[in-house]
Amino acid sequence: MDIISILEDKKRGKSLTRDQIAYFVKGAADESIPNYQLAALLMAIRLNGMDVRETVDLTVAMAASGDMLSPDVGGVPVDKHSTGGVGDTTTLVLAPLVAACGGKVLKMSGRGLGHTGGTIDKLESISGMKVELPEEEFVSIVRSVGCAVVGQSKHLAPADKTLYALRDVTATVDSIPLIVSSILSKKFAAGAKAIVLDVKTGSGALMPTLEASIELAQAMVNIGHYAGRNIVAVVSGMEEPLGSHVGNALEVKEAIDILAGRAGGPLKRVSLFLGSQMLVVSGVAKTEEEALEKLSAALDSGAGLRKLKEMISAQGGDSRVCDDVTLLPQAPVRYQVKAQADGYLAHVNGTALGLAAQRMGAGRVSKEDKIDPAVGFVMEKRIGDFVKAGDVVCTLHAASEQSAKETEQRILDALTFTKEPAPKARLLYALVKPEGVTELED
Amino acid sequence: MDIISILEDKKRGKSLTRDQIAYFVKGAADESIPNYQLAALLMAIRLNGMDVRETVDLTVAMAASGDMLSPDVGGVPVDKHSTGGVGDTTTLVLAPLVAACGGKVLKMSGRGLGHTGGTIDKLESISGMKVELPEEEFVSIVRSVGCAVVGQSKHLAPADKTLYALRDVTATVDSIPLIVSSILSKKFAAGAKAIVLDVKTGSGALMPTLEASIELAQAMVNIGHYAGRNIVAVVSGMEEPLGSHVGNALEVKEAIDILAGRAGGPLKRVSLFLGSQMLVVSGVAKTEEEALEKLSAALDSGAGLRKLKEMISAQGGDSRVCDDVTLLPQAPVRYQVKAQADGYLAHVNGTALGLAAQRMGAGRVSKEDKIDPAVGFVMEKRIGDFVKAGDVVCTLHAASEQSAKETEQRILDALTFTKEPAPKARLLYALVKPEGVTELED
Repeated sequence: MDIISILEDKKRGKSLTRDQIAYFVKGAADESIPNYQLAALLMAIRLNGMDVRETVDLTVAMAASGDMLSPDVGGVPVDKHSTGGVGDTTTLVLAPLVAACGGKVLKMSGRGLGHTGGTIDKLESISGMKVELPEEEFVSIVRSVGCAVVGQSKHLAPADKTLYALRDVTATVDSIPLIVSSILSKKFAAGAKAIVLDVKTGSGALMPTLEASIELAQAMVNIGHYAGRNIVAVVSGMEEPLGSHVGNALEVKEAIDILAGRAGGPLKRVSLFLGSQMLVVSGVAKTEEEALEKLSAALDSGAGLRKLKEMISAQGGDSRVCDDVTLLPQAPVRYQVKAQADGYLAHVNGTALGLAAQRMGAGRVSKEDKIDPAVGFVMEKRIGDFVKAGDVVCTLHAASEQSAKETEQRILDALTFTKEPAPKARLLYALVKPEGVTELED
Repeated sequence: MDIISILEDKKRGKSLTRDQIAYFVKGAADESIPNYQLAALLMAIRLNGMDVRETVDLTVAMAASGDMLSPDVGGVPVDKHSTGGVGDTTTLVLAPLVAACGGKVLKMSGRGLGHTGGTIDKLESISGMKVELPEEEFVSIVRSVGCAVVGQSKHLAPADKTLYALRDVTATVDSIPLIVSSILSKKFAAGAKAIVLDVKTGSGALMPTLEASIELAQAMVNIGHYAGRNIVAVVSGMEEPLGSHVGNALEVKEAIDILAGRAGGPLKRVSLFLGSQMLVVSGVAKTEEEALEKLSAALDSGAGLRKLKEMISAQGGDSRVCDDVTLLPQAPVRYQVKAQADGYLAHVNGTALGLAAQRMGAGRVSKEDKIDPAVGFVMEKRIGDFVKAGDVVCTLHAASEQSAKETEQRILDALTFTKEPAPKARLLYALVKPEGVTELED
């Protein structure tokens, strides 16, 4: 066995054997195979593909390249994963709600990089919140509270760290077997037995078209199913930020507002839908309808908000923010961005909005950057809304007047207004299960 | 301009622009682009190809990545390149013959690595011979003598050094645009205006089938033609070593024997044919027939052998070897390998013979290895010959009895004998010119 013959085989379009896959995954994990050979292999996989059997073997080998957790959380460990978006705070809404219904949410999240935020960064805007916990403590919180959200352990799926970093710099991100194995290997290693995936579609998503997004969702569900997980995927739109709030503390505030019954909208709608799927795949509810009823009850009774408080306390954070959101970091400058003419909001460049937030200080350009938890903005209009000249379209929470001025133009540049009425952006497209695809009503 | 967008474009099967090609070639030459990105690009080029315009741009950019010589040699600088083989000493036969007819042979050669020998190593078996000469001295010898053979300058086509080394370890050797640009960029940089290529076909060749070898030859001739060179390619067989002698001093001896009229066979036949093409492309002869007449006359008159003596003297070597081949290094042990049964020699594993010579000490396993110029062997039979049990099939020139014993088995393992008569191996297949392909009679 050697890497050259593996490269030869994939170059010629052959299926790699399980042993060949295990060999290069081990070489990626322990760095015994040089990056240039892995890079050439990634491009060969991107161009010649991998069949279902190869992708299952790749995912399992990547999961097994580091620690494999089998956490005893007093139920079926359930996880949710989104393929990324701006203003996407579903985790902070659905994790406490699912826990309030009896689910066991074991969630490892990433930090933000580039234009997308990271759940871990958002949680750290809460004073005292610890997101790096020893495995026993993390598992114990899931067992007692029902949910915990921590950073990705360095000991899980180390092969993915090597391959993911290389894909980013070799234009091999958009490969279904590589996406699937990267996402699912970490879920498998963390011990998730039930998984709900939120596959985004639209401009800026991993896959450019609805067809390609559904194909990716099907591949992930198939691979998870073959590997013995209870798994479904939701294909959802990302034509504009899901929530109205963009920025770390602002997104925590929005999640609290939803759990407290003060806010609604698309973020609430999608969080409840994803949460209902989590209750079904983990066996807490028998049907989607039963699951949605349970979640609504947990929302209305305040049980969800209480679970968030419990989780924050258990992770060392100041849970009083759940009763008083002004305890979250506050930016010194508020600034209203106003529409310059009458028109319908027809298009939102989500990537540009994410980058605008990043430049305000809410995100990182490089991994070492510090972020400012207080800054960001609140979108006051959504696609399809009519605005008059002078209407407030966005409220900035900025670190300085100058930052606000700079951001104002970036926000306006990211929005397209038309004279003709524009349709609302679609939120939900499809539910993908091992047995087939169901179109979703919005 | 950045390497990621170049990777994206080639991944999607687009033609790269001249600027994109210049960008990554510069990055390969000055090592500003990391190897892993170049490796991924090489695999994308291997799988998605390059059109003629891209390949011309790549070749020219690689040539321009280092020094570009415009040597004043008093005529049209002509070069010959072979895609590699065992026992292939055509350069040492044809360079002096072409020079004797008035051609100006400017030849940069490589050292041997793996199973194939290198012309530079062969020349160094001549006492005093200098193969690393300053450019002015090298050019001056070509001008006065008509031919010189030196090692590849480090300052020519540095981008090729980076890319060639990466191709070897990423399974991207077998790509026509990458082969063509690697070979021709060095010829262009060295100032060759007329070029004859010897593209080998058969097992162990760069291209596995005759069709693929002709395709490669056509690609090289097209690219050279578009870049303004007078170029033809000969597709020749490599079913067995071209000459009967394998080993450094032994191959020099065989070349001298041919120039002295003491030996003939396939090596002489192919050398004369390639030499005649060199005279035609460099304008010294009008037709192939005229060129062959001139070469035969130079051979018969001893003018070719005198040119070899002049070249050896000019490069500091002991030219008395041309009159007395016993002055070449001699191995202490001679050993006759005999046929074990009656039969026809039907198949020769040339790669195995090359490796047998390498293990005797004639070649290198790694670049740093020292070689023994004296060792090697002389094949006494060719494909199609009938042998009786006990007939000598090969004479070994070994450093020790033990080496001879070990080599005996390797030689026998490389030869296949059959009861049924076997046809002779074909030497010449096709002549490829910009205007088309002509099948050659053997």
